[in-house]
Amino acid sequence: MFDFTIEATSGPARAGRLALPHGTVETPAFLPVGTQGTVRALSPRDLQAVGAELVLANTYHLHVRPGEAVVAKLGGLHRFMAWDRPLLTDAGGFQVFSLDGFREVREDGVEFQSHVDGGRRTLTPERAVEIQWTLGADIAMAFDHVAPGGADVATARDALDRTLRWLERCARRHRELSDSRTAGRPDGKAFTVRPSDSPTVRQTLWPILQGGAHLDLRAEGLRRILELGSWTGLAIGGLSVGEPKRVMYDMLEALEPRLPGDLPRYLMGVGFPADLVAAVERGVDLFDCVAPTRHGRNGSAFTPDGPVNIRNAEHREDPRPLDATCDCETCTTFSRGYLRHLFVAEELLGLRLLSLHNVRFLIRLAAEMRAAIRARDFPRWADAWRRRYTQTGSA
Amino acid sequence: MFDFTIEATSGPARAGRLALPHGTVETPAFLPVGTQGTVRALSPRDLQAVGAELVLANTYHLHVRPGEAVVAKLGGLHRFMAWDRPLLTDAGGFQVFSLDGFREVREDGVEFQSHVDGGRRTLTPERAVEIQWTLGADIAMAFDHVAPGGADVATARDALDRTLRWLERCARRHRELSDSRTAGRPDGKAFTVRPSDSPTVRQTLWPILQGGAHLDLRAEGLRRILELGSWTGLAIGGLSVGEPKRVMYDMLEALEPRLPGDLPRYLMGVGFPADLVAAVERGVDLFDCVAPTRHGRNGSAFTPDGPVNIRNAEHREDPRPLDATCDCETCTTFSRGYLRHLFVAEELLGLRLLSLHNVRFLIRLAAEMRAAIRARDFPRWADAWRRRYTQTGSA
Repeated sequence: MFDFTIEATSGPARAGRLALPHGTVETPAFLPVGTQGTVRALSPRDLQAVGAELVLANTYHLHVRPGEAVVAKLGGLHRFMAWDRPLLTDAGGFQVFSLDGFREVREDGVEFQSHVDGGRRTLTPERAVEIQWTLGADIAMAFDHVAPGGADVATARDALDRTLRWLERCARRHRELSDSRTAGRPDGKAFTVRPSDSPTVRQTLWPILQGGAHLDLRAEGLRRILELGSWTGLAIGGLSVGEPKRVMYDMLEALEPRLPGDLPRYLMGVGFPADLVAAVERGVDLFDCVAPTRHGRNGSAFTPDGPVNIRNAEHREDPRPLDATCDCETCTTFSRGYLRHLFVAEELLGLRLLSLHNVRFLIRLAAEMRAAIRARDFPRWADAWRRRYTQTGSA
Repeated sequence: MFDFTIEATSGPARAGRLALPHGTVETPAFLPVGTQGTVRALSPRDLQAVGAELVLANTYHLHVRPGEAVVAKLGGLHRFMAWDRPLLTDAGGFQVFSLDGFREVREDGVEFQSHVDGGRRTLTPERAVEIQWTLGADIAMAFDHVAPGGADVATARDALDRTLRWLERCARRHRELSDSRTAGRPDGKAFTVRPSDSPTVRQTLWPILQGGAHLDLRAEGLRRILELGSWTGLAIGGLSVGEPKRVMYDMLEALEPRLPGDLPRYLMGVGFPADLVAAVERGVDLFDCVAPTRHGRNGSAFTPDGPVNIRNAEHREDPRPLDATCDCETCTTFSRGYLRHLFVAEELLGLRLLSLHNVRFLIRLAAEMRAAIRARDFPRWADAWRRRYTQTGSA
């Protein structure tokens, strides 16, 4: 369980296969984001149709509403969402540090204000792990302290050190829960809900590497994470948080030779097409991002020739599909003219159809990258892809 | 083409089959409403999955946006919506008379203010027919003057007389268009788009009976409509516009023996479950209404035990389906607890899942009525259905 097999490489790019309790994920892979236990505007059937193999949900959001106890009573996150394939839950650190409102970081954890009811709540490393255990995703993430994009060395070091101390606490609590199926909750009551339907332990915990834009901090953080335990995967956090793209690419390039070769590498929060290609070139295996659904709801569609704004008047009478190369329901069924009408007329179906296409676009992009890596042809493929994608005016 | 065959009766209730250019419709039938060329929150695949056989779109809305010329350039309404089964277009009278804003009724037609850009536009009987011809639905409706629900005799007679004069003009124009595939437009240019992909004439025009709540006016209107031509169907308009339910039921009951037995009878704008049953009992064959999708978007679901408001706290941890008797995606996949979460968290998927279920509910209701009529058991079935539906507190 949680085995990662690399099947082919092409330079630093890797094509692999990650075995999880609820199924196998072929990498490189894009994870659609189901923040509140639903990928916005899409159904589980839609996700299956576009080839999603691993879906992310947010611990912070589900804890605040409806609460993990409700999810557990409704059979756990897989049953709740009606998604019987692999799930990953983000620990909530990124949300606590990026949402508006009061927050106070203490060594124990973070006190913050719920965006739903304004009430004060505290998330500690232990609580974040317990909530994720109750939700029951295949992969849980450690609770981290995310520093802002342009943080100086002192701020980034403080956040990194705290993230590492919190990682130890997360790992300890996760081990306790894994060792005992009726481990105690902080209030002394026993867990009544197991993390999954299997009698064996079926959740793994992944650490998150922080360190801002400072390579020495990142390298130190990586070394200390690997000293802390034997992990089944490794996430890179704190990138794509406002810094220039070049900084992210350079950091990935510098980190790549230092990363253990046998662990899946998950670059959190990255999901623009060109970033996926650049990151796979630098050895990344997994990605998640709200961009395809958020942009889709705004009428912006990914295409091999770059983004298309479907609201533009030029699409008014255009009988062509959004993306002639795409096999999704949107592209095989509807004209650009109709899709534009849906957006101009503010019809709900438009939000769904562009979200569906954008998610399919990133999943197909990952599949194309896999194929190019297997053909040992990734550098050439990536150059050709980039030439077409950055070409403007041809869509 | 446009043949209506009655296959069974049970009292005034009829089970039939209406042959249309794009397919056959089994009656009684409920028509989902795609006001702007899309049934709100649902895709054509959803409509197919819930068993929709005939879908309604609105001439007024499509004329105002994107305009029938755009729809024609994109291949006509069927292709535009990606719905290759039967379509019916409402002529726009109801919209012009019910939407807010300026309107002036003249003998020629109605001048009104577009709800999109506020611009003044005029719809005449001829234009309404031409627009519908350009859209290319299987069934076009005559342009009528709808009087308000509580209209007195004088107002109702005025609207009825005008509706009948307009019907003559609609029928004349429709005949001209049917007789000549390149009939002239008002601006003198020839039509470049045929109403459908077939070389034969593939659109029929149905009259709308008005007369308010006045049986003598309705009876006179019916007689004059039947004198004006040989129709393939007959619509009953101006009911369910604010008058008490009893008035509508009594009117249908009084009209039924006067209606030609061999024409499909279409009660416009009616779509609450109990109204469908009551109207089928009084010999109606077809219905349309925005209620299932509008109520669905508000979190209200039809069930055999009466409506359920999914936002209610009682559903918070309820693992049961919305309607245990239903075979739709919503009911076979998700718990009430999850559906409530989607609504409380304002997730788009909730709007779609309840719309889907409500449309399926009415289509299944129509299918159950067909079965009961075929079994010559409709009165008993209707009583049993009503006893359960009006029972409260058991859902």
